[in-house]
Amino acid sequence: MPSYKAPVRDMQFLLHEVLGFEDLTQYEAFSEVDRDLADAILGEASKFSEEVLAPLNVVGDHEGCTRNADGSVTTPTGFKDAYKQMTENGWTSLSMDPTYGGQGMPGMLQIAASEMWTSSNMAFAMYPGLTGGAIKAIQVGGSDEQKQTYLPKMMSGEWTGTMNLTEPHCGTDLGMLKTKAVPQADGSYKISGQKIFISAGEHDMSDNIVHLVLARIEGAPAGTKGISLFIVPKFKLDENEDPGERNAVSCGSIEEKMGIHGNSTCVMNYDEAEGYLIGEENKGLRVMFVMMNEARIGVGLQGLGQSEVAYQNAAIYAKDRIQGRALTGPQNEEKPADPIIVHPDVRRMLMETKAFNEAGRALLYWAAKHEDIEKHTEDEKLAEKCDDYLGLLTPVVKGYLTDMSMKTTIDCQQIFGGHGFVEEWGMSQFVRDNRIALIYEGANGVQALDLVGRKLARNGGRALMTLNAEIDQFVKDNAGNDAISEFMDGLSGAKTKLTEATMWLMQNGMKDPNNAGAGSTDYMHMLGLATLAYMWAKMAVVAQAKIDDGSNEDFYPNKLITGRYFMLRMLPMLDSHLAKIKTGAEPLMALEAAAF
Amino acid sequence: MPSYKAPVRDMQFLLHEVLGFEDLTQYEAFSEVDRDLADAILGEASKFSEEVLAPLNVVGDHEGCTRNADGSVTTPTGFKDAYKQMTENGWTSLSMDPTYGGQGMPGMLQIAASEMWTSSNMAFAMYPGLTGGAIKAIQVGGSDEQKQTYLPKMMSGEWTGTMNLTEPHCGTDLGMLKTKAVPQADGSYKISGQKIFISAGEHDMSDNIVHLVLARIEGAPAGTKGISLFIVPKFKLDENEDPGERNAVSCGSIEEKMGIHGNSTCVMNYDEAEGYLIGEENKGLRVMFVMMNEARIGVGLQGLGQSEVAYQNAAIYAKDRIQGRALTGPQNEEKPADPIIVHPDVRRMLMETKAFNEAGRALLYWAAKHEDIEKHTEDEKLAEKCDDYLGLLTPVVKGYLTDMSMKTTIDCQQIFGGHGFVEEWGMSQFVRDNRIALIYEGANGVQALDLVGRKLARNGGRALMTLNAEIDQFVKDNAGNDAISEFMDGLSGAKTKLTEATMWLMQNGMKDPNNAGAGSTDYMHMLGLATLAYMWAKMAVVAQAKIDDGSNEDFYPNKLITGRYFMLRMLPMLDSHLAKIKTGAEPLMALEAAAF
Repeated sequence: MPSYKAPVRDMQFLLHEVLGFEDLTQYEAFSEVDRDLADAILGEASKFSEEVLAPLNVVGDHEGCTRNADGSVTTPTGFKDAYKQMTENGWTSLSMDPTYGGQGMPGMLQIAASEMWTSSNMAFAMYPGLTGGAIKAIQVGGSDEQKQTYLPKMMSGEWTGTMNLTEPHCGTDLGMLKTKAVPQADGSYKISGQKIFISAGEHDMSDNIVHLVLARIEGAPAGTKGISLFIVPKFKLDENEDPGERNAVSCGSIEEKMGIHGNSTCVMNYDEAEGYLIGEENKGLRVMFVMMNEARIGVGLQGLGQSEVAYQNAAIYAKDRIQGRALTGPQNEEKPADPIIVHPDVRRMLMETKAFNEAGRALLYWAAKHEDIEKHTEDEKLAEKCDDYLGLLTPVVKGYLTDMSMKTTIDCQQIFGGHGFVEEWGMSQFVRDNRIALIYEGANGVQALDLVGRKLARNGGRALMTLNAEIDQFVKDNAGNDAISEFMDGLSGAKTKLTEATMWLMQNGMKDPNNAGAGSTDYMHMLGLATLAYMWAKMAVVAQAKIDDGSNEDFYPNKLITGRYFMLRMLPMLDSHLAKIKTGAEPLMALEAAAF
Repeated sequence: MPSYKAPVRDMQFLLHEVLGFEDLTQYEAFSEVDRDLADAILGEASKFSEEVLAPLNVVGDHEGCTRNADGSVTTPTGFKDAYKQMTENGWTSLSMDPTYGGQGMPGMLQIAASEMWTSSNMAFAMYPGLTGGAIKAIQVGGSDEQKQTYLPKMMSGEWTGTMNLTEPHCGTDLGMLKTKAVPQADGSYKISGQKIFISAGEHDMSDNIVHLVLARIEGAPAGTKGISLFIVPKFKLDENEDPGERNAVSCGSIEEKMGIHGNSTCVMNYDEAEGYLIGEENKGLRVMFVMMNEARIGVGLQGLGQSEVAYQNAAIYAKDRIQGRALTGPQNEEKPADPIIVHPDVRRMLMETKAFNEAGRALLYWAAKHEDIEKHTEDEKLAEKCDDYLGLLTPVVKGYLTDMSMKTTIDCQQIFGGHGFVEEWGMSQFVRDNRIALIYEGANGVQALDLVGRKLARNGGRALMTLNAEIDQFVKDNAGNDAISEFMDGLSGAKTKLTEATMWLMQNGMKDPNNAGAGSTDYMHMLGLATLAYMWAKMAVVAQAKIDDGSNEDFYPNKLITGRYFMLRMLPMLDSHLAKIKTGAEPLMALEAAAF
């Protein structure tokens, strides 16, 4: 059975040494959040993830969820109890708004805890994760009354939430959705239609489920301009606002899928279900997209989480499994063979995953810090910068990190040889669970298009220009630091190549938008590589300073070794991506559709 | 449900127009194999694969194999009957030696048929596939009596075969194997031990199962020098050479695994089972490796087969699924959305897969031709060249093609969005089934090491030098052909970069073998890219000639478009691989094992 150990030391390094978690105390809301409190929370979260969630991961995969004859859904053995513990320990409300009973911790700390939940049990973590998305939507678009009614129970975890977007004939293109809403005399709506792929759509872990449903009000305009967002609770609320009469929404079936078996992915049928409009009529997508941007960061985190747990197990196996001898001669004379970690090609897969994970984690936590600042700063210029960065980085975090985690989880599985293919060792599950992260919340190709088609050009390209200026300044500031010159050179080179790609896309995307589309995924990877290079350079500065200050913790030189691998062996991908981008759309578009 | 259509036109193009299948008629054994016969066989094979095998693919995945209380194994519904049809139609003996009842068709034709079997139903195709491996081992190492006894029944398909190498503690490093063989007075041996991951180890489709088992004779030297190969039939043969008394070999359990559920992957327990030595004592590995090299080509074919069927279904879906609008404006005004094939990023995934598949197929069939020639030519120099090429290309076919098919099957699944993740559409199965191809018959990292550590340097590097000279001559011969200059430029560039990588490895691998190991996978991919570039250049020459001759079949210009995509958008990977290779082993080896 696979194991999981929360990478607390690495998290602390990022929060306290590299990314300045303590800066947040300048904001009123976080004035009492000090290092001790943060570390105590990390400690408790690691225990919960390692001891409660991780052992249930395989159980969830094997048992899956069961839809019973009455339409109810039973979650895997242990899930219900673990969820109860999670709510009792207050984990669902950790970073939630204190106005509604949340604990108001920073997002930077939440993301560390969330990483532990998703690494240890991705399918389980989706239940509170989806609730978080639904909470966000109500906070952004709901009335005061709706907030008072739903948020406290959702933050406490007593009620969970879902997001109902996809229909059989439309997912990416929500303009085509057909679910209809008919206004009633009392101000509510009757919602009818079918939604598919609804994660956590029906289950037995909470007292109520608050469905957020996109639907079209009768007579609304066609396309995306006629979509509204509704709250449809599984149980309508009685006069005491407790779950009362059953609403006309039900789970028609559970999808059989490649992974995340522990999460119930439902076909949800709405048959004149009672729903309540959130915000204005026909403005539902706006609310949904605010929430979805946050969800996309969460999906990037899922990718990192699977990559991390896959890495941990592969590293253990590679040090333990003896097979063959080192190319340079036996390293383990007394045993019949050497551990397979002596082989450069096994190390290549481990180093690649490790170098990706550590910088991917930094990127996620860095993004979370910008979100914290944006929410709490009164400096408009700073808030604008944070918003710019989040807009630019969201598709990278979602698309690039999960593309990469697909590669790394497969590599970690590969290290197990045949044992990686059989389910017994659990490596297959990490690959299968991770697979969905490339798809939902906007497939990675949609992320790439969002990046080159919208985020890059917004406000005259301000976001990337600001980031580039920040990187330039950083490189300048560290120019004299010879011990880490490889990091600065790598970062500068990455920025230069990225700029060349950006210029090419700007110039040629104008002429033919397909040129931008054709290079979009390669560009997303280039921006991913460049931002991870920035994260590695930041980490290297700190690690080198600690060494210069006389630290004898191995952690710091090991950071430099891992980062150096990234600079030397992963950044070369930039050249291939750049060359591909510059071929433009023609090689892709030349073939008639019928010839495929 | 996914569909499969055998790519007969493409196969014919390769056999008859590009690779000179008809050249084989110069050999006595193939003197009657003309184009009509070949095409008739392709036609019948396509029917069998499309109508009988393909519909059972999903069934096999869903049902899997069942081990019954008595140790017998029931295969999925329909498998037994399909296998019966396969044997009755003579498919199992197609290219087998006529001495033992085979039909003696060329390997070039066999590989086309085998592609159809594995594309339409990989788990099913493994049953006859493994038998083919066992036949090969008996042919190479067995006595005349053993050949007479086993080969006719195995070629007809009445009996199937297995290969028993792996034990719980050893797979790659067979020197550690513990299964023991105790000589008996009658010349037989008592075999005892446990073997794992035995494909087709036990099932209900044949009258007998001929296990080929690696074991160590009591008192034999330790390591690889003390390993012998044995025949252990499931049923011992009676005086009429019919299956009689049950031998002491049994299936202990069936592995639960990520894919190929329709194939029974067994733990096999040998408890003083009666076995018969093949060839000489302690020389078992030699025989096993002859057979394994052929099996590795078969695994590369599995990768191609999954990539092909995944591509076909993704192309259908991309043309059918409407969602969103083309970046250049609506292409399908009368419908609410355009088919997703209008999107450059969807085309990127389709073109990449198509360009890979068509050249990968060419490489496989080209390799098969060399094998046919090697077996039948009396020209020793030519046979040597064929052997050199096969040695060099085997790790590329196995390792590079399956690494790539992992990428392409995932991309094809991605095109389906959420529908790709649910099992209903069948795309998940192609990814899951393909996954094993990167692992068995020597994990891809082992292939890469075989390439750089053995195949490259053998006979002073003769194999690659010969291939390079062939490519140079080919480029020279086509230098004046301006219409396909991009192909010649791409191929020349690929050869130049490959040569640079080869030189680097030669020089630096000598200093430190870890330098070779560290670059081995990147090098394998470079050789893969270069050989696929050669295949594309060959195909382009033919396609352009047909166009110049006035053909109005769209097939030819479409070939050029697809090949051009490969040259412009896939060959740039060479630069990244080269840069990575040149960083050497140090970045990988610097970290202490304990720090992983």
